[in-house]
Amino acid sequence: MTTTSTFPSPECRYEHRVSYGETDCMGVVYYAEYLHLFERARSEFIRERGMSYARVEEKGFFLPIREAHCRYLAPARYDDLIVVRTGIDAWTRASVRFIYEISDKNSGKPLSTGFTQHACVNRDGRPVRIPQWLRDLMTDA
Amino acid sequence: MTTTSTFPSPECRYEHRVSYGETDCMGVVYYAEYLHLFERARSEFIRERGMSYARVEEKGFFLPIREAHCRYLAPARYDDLIVVRTGIDAWTRASVRFIYEISDKNSGKPLSTGFTQHACVNRDGRPVRIPQWLRDLMTDA
Amino acid sequence: MTTTSTFPSPECRYEHRVSYGETDCMGVVYYAEYLHLFERARSEFIRERGMSYARVEEKGFFLPIREAHCRYLAPARYDDLIVVRTGIDAWTRASVRFIYEISDKNSGKPLSTGFTQHACVNRDGRPVRIPQWLRDLMTDA
Amino acid sequence: MTTTSTFPSPECRYEHRVSYGETDCMGVVYYAEYLHLFERARSEFIRERGMSYARVEEKGFFLPIREAHCRYLAPARYDDLIVVRTGIDAWTRASVRFIYEISDKNSGKPLSTGFTQHACVNRDGRPVRIPQWLRDLMTDA
Repeated sequence: MTTTSTFPSPECRYEHRVSYGETDCMGVVYYAEYLHLFERARSEFIRERGMSYARVEEKGFFLPIREAHCRYLAPARYDDLIVVRTGIDAWTRASVRFIYEISDKNSGKPLSTGFTQHACVNRDGRPVRIPQWLRDLMTDA
Repeated sequence: MTTTSTFPSPECRYEHRVSYGETDCMGVVYYAEYLHLFERARSEFIRERGMSYARVEEKGFFLPIREAHCRYLAPARYDDLIVVRTGIDAWTRASVRFIYEISDKNSGKPLSTGFTQHACVNRDGRPVRIPQWLRDLMTDA
Repeated sequence: MTTTSTFPSPECRYEHRVSYGETDCMGVVYYAEYLHLFERARSEFIRERGMSYARVEEKGFFLPIREAHCRYLAPARYDDLIVVRTGIDAWTRASVRFIYEISDKNSGKPLSTGFTQHACVNRDGRPVRIPQWLRDLMTDA
Repeated sequence: MTTTSTFPSPECRYEHRVSYGETDCMGVVYYAEYLHLFERARSEFIRERGMSYARVEEKGFFLPIREAHCRYLAPARYDDLIVVRTGIDAWTRASVRFIYEISDKNSGKPLSTGFTQHACVNRDGRPVRIPQWLRDLMTDA
């Protein structure tokens, strides 16, 4: 699913410089920080399609996370410049799945892979069908 | 202001075990984490007085932070058990200031001191006088 | 794997009060925070067995995370008191898997489930067999 | 000290997009996150002078924080694009003080101001005089 050869299109490549505050006393990026990176990259993916996720929420649709997964392949360290590649690899009527590949910007070394599964809900938190405009937005290259 | 001899009453002593995720690659608790600790201790201070801060908000009063300060005296490390001493040392008609002293639970060694200055606002974010019941609550030993 | 009926023994029940800093603008605990909670609970699990994880590291053994997973069942909110149930459900020669179930302390409502897969490495970061004393420690009720 | 008219030179302007994970249930950026932003901006300030702070540490000099202060003028929200202006406004033989002004990128509205006071220590954590090359580096426009 997350191999380079099959990475879905469209995709977004989000660059990020590792800060001190993201590391832990083992000297590497703390494992929970990867979910923050996934979120930043996911937001950027949507923004690049033409509308911010903030605007999607204003229109009454929310994409809360139902499941998150991360595989840690190699550590990232303070000051490393990394790239989070993001795409969508699965849809259902009322859910969408983003996948992520993080690598070191300079060496290209793979650092982690992961996915997040999202429901689509309205302002009341009730699951709803993903509206066509939102689906079009997120699949627009 | 933050010397032991003059620490205001009532006070709360909040215990906290340092987690891995709070440390950074220098091997010590990251400096922003102290503000999280202040918040936890402040919430506990209010709860010990008889009402949670969540309930205060439900009643329509909010205490957003206008200023925060922290002095770092000695580092805390992973797995250290620390104590956050909390009290209120200043009031105005529409603001309140909490002070904090963090020390190592076992050695008593001082680790940091700080304060947070809070406005009192209503649901619309407008500054309001701190109601008497809230002031009574927070000064109740 | 994470149903109550089959939760492995020994287990640890770690209580946690949700802080403001753990929530996000949707009004609920941010999804990455669950990995922090897993870590806190895991540390407590090991400590309850008789030795802190900090001490395990001093003895030259480290348990870096290779994989993390979390399923979000219901949101937790500011000031909620929650319980993280933790146990170990799988071993290999050089890895161990912790599982977690988070629920609301008062209502018992399930909030999330998850797991973390850990390698065992030495000071040089090389995978090593989990020493018998460490395995005994972590399986000691 | 932190008025625009007297902001010290050289300076760095670090842009940052507010993420979901930085907000809290009041709908705004959580107060501790500003210290993370200060750190990111400070690192960028040093990098722009010609050497990363990571490299400074490799050369045996560390700048741990002794004091941090932040004044919160107006809230930042999810998806806001903000700018952190950073400079150095005070030196002693063995310490340096960074100041920060955060504003909204689009409106220019001031959001916060702050400072961090740093010691200079060697690998053993002992205070040392800031070496001339480091002082030259950080004052180089």
